[in-house]
Amino acid sequence: MYLAPNLNHLPHLSTAEFAHRIVQGDRLALSRAITLIESQVPAHRTQSLELLDKIYNQRTPSFRIGLTGIPGVGKSTFIEALGKEVIESGNKLAVLAIDPSSTQSKGSILGDKTRMGSLSRAPEAFIRPSPSAGTLGGIAARTRETMLLCEAAGFDTIIIETVGVGQSETEALFLTDVFLMLAMPGTGDELQGIKRGIMEAADLIVINKADGSNESLAKQAKKQLEIALHLFPAKESEWRVKVLLASGLHGLGVKECWKRLKAFREHTSSNGFFEANRITQNLRAFERLSEMGLYDLVRSVLGDDQLLSDIQAQLENGSLNEYAGALQILEPLRERFGIPKS
Amino acid sequence: MYLAPNLNHLPHLSTAEFAHRIVQGDRLALSRAITLIESQVPAHRTQSLELLDKIYNQRTPSFRIGLTGIPGVGKSTFIEALGKEVIESGNKLAVLAIDPSSTQSKGSILGDKTRMGSLSRAPEAFIRPSPSAGTLGGIAARTRETMLLCEAAGFDTIIIETVGVGQSETEALFLTDVFLMLAMPGTGDELQGIKRGIMEAADLIVINKADGSNESLAKQAKKQLEIALHLFPAKESEWRVKVLLASGLHGLGVKECWKRLKAFREHTSSNGFFEANRITQNLRAFERLSEMGLYDLVRSVLGDDQLLSDIQAQLENGSLNEYAGALQILEPLRERFGIPKS
Repeated sequence: MYLAPNLNHLPHLSTAEFAHRIVQGDRLALSRAITLIESQVPAHRTQSLELLDKIYNQRTPSFRIGLTGIPGVGKSTFIEALGKEVIESGNKLAVLAIDPSSTQSKGSILGDKTRMGSLSRAPEAFIRPSPSAGTLGGIAARTRETMLLCEAAGFDTIIIETVGVGQSETEALFLTDVFLMLAMPGTGDELQGIKRGIMEAADLIVINKADGSNESLAKQAKKQLEIALHLFPAKESEWRVKVLLASGLHGLGVKECWKRLKAFREHTSSNGFFEANRITQNLRAFERLSEMGLYDLVRSVLGDDQLLSDIQAQLENGSLNEYAGALQILEPLRERFGIPKS
Repeated sequence: MYLAPNLNHLPHLSTAEFAHRIVQGDRLALSRAITLIESQVPAHRTQSLELLDKIYNQRTPSFRIGLTGIPGVGKSTFIEALGKEVIESGNKLAVLAIDPSSTQSKGSILGDKTRMGSLSRAPEAFIRPSPSAGTLGGIAARTRETMLLCEAAGFDTIIIETVGVGQSETEALFLTDVFLMLAMPGTGDELQGIKRGIMEAADLIVINKADGSNESLAKQAKKQLEIALHLFPAKESEWRVKVLLASGLHGLGVKECWKRLKAFREHTSSNGFFEANRITQNLRAFERLSEMGLYDLVRSVLGDDQLLSDIQAQLENGSLNEYAGALQILEPLRERFGIPKS
């Protein structure tokens, strides 16, 4: 799905001027830049990379928080409460999202201005819906670029939310410094609806809706979780996962949550993990960028937009194996570039 | 590091003839094929892909077991005992390895014929050391291809071992149906030397060296682990992780281990996870193949072998950002192929 942004009615800006305006805090320039990087028009890609290279070293040092939770767990209400706390502490907050389902307008992350109404009106906050086209990898890459643009615009705290039902969490992990999982008490031993992989990745587990009649159930769940987590070795960050109780609706536990997030940043800055993790993430981002860029070039060179998706469909239904698939990509290129077979 | 195999002294085989001999069980043909796919000579890559495409649908249905454990946990002894059990049950077993450190001859997986002496002499077994050149991704890709060749040669059970101290486990996860982690009792609550990420990935945790004076410590560790694991939601495979006690040295717990592995296969075949997981893995393998193939082509086209590693070094020390890095790869190609900038 091509998204060709209409940038024609606005005055043409050089990359340097564009970057300058973003860094000055010009919200319109920021929005235009995000629209540019979300464009799937190949020519816009080069412009985007140049703009990102330009603003890269002009960014505000930031703290990137991944936040996930299944629909129903109270994510928007919690983010709104946490967001207010972040801003009241003197920060500038951007809230972004990775939601592949938003392509079909059936996404769970809709109408942000309604969902987080009060937060969206705060001048120190900036809320942007998930990019809405392409593969999960493409969406994640565009979200990362949006995050960098926000940092250039002066936002020092970024929340990246995911819906908690697909592979988006893995992508969010690669974009963020700390990972927070929202859960809620269920009727049995287990917390409700949580994917095992997400729980294992979390640095902070917040049991939301821990109010009223649910309070004792939530306390019990917290206790059991803490026992379980204690038996597992520490994570690479050497941070011991914390379990908190909260109620986004009543604003309970939110201050404590922000305090713990900052403690995580302190801890991992001291032991070097914060910086090392960022370098690993940058390397991975480079790999993904090159990969996607190469695929775009290949499609331009071969003049075949469908080749890749046809191959993937055939791989999924088993009518083609991955080696034959790779040959279908690489052989035409080898011939085209006159590289001898042996 | 270029590994240019000397295939000249052997009669030239067509891909079809080569494939035929492998499927017939000709061990020499199998070894030649593995040497071919491990070659880093670009021309050999095309031949390799064609051979793999040829044998792909002639493979024996198989069971792929990932096995990890830190040095000292008794991995070789355990694999030898498990291997014997597998063969005595009427199977043909190949044991492969992913060990990036083997490049420097300091790898932990050395001299397989000594390590697993008795197993290596069994005609139903085939043991091959880790490929020894290139990046971790390259090593994993070559191991996967070796695995497919072994399946074409009639091996129905594959063990892929990793050393347990790096990123090799993630790669092994993407190659296998089930993941077994070997641990041993420590002095405190925690099992000795285990990386958190590995424990979370395991489908089966085997506490080895659970004999003699260690037996009660091992039993206690098993109990605590089981409590902890029970509190976590089931994995995507809907398989509840099992903890077993074993002693590879005394052959204890090995029959039970093989029984549980087969139970896992049964369970995941019934609920469709086994097949779905394989498809996901095939897709990922295709992506990695295309990616690596594209990079090889790019290097041939640009005539610059160093570009990629220079960029990665600069990314690691922070002197270059990932967007500038991507531009350095993509821009020369865009110009070379005459693709307009906008």
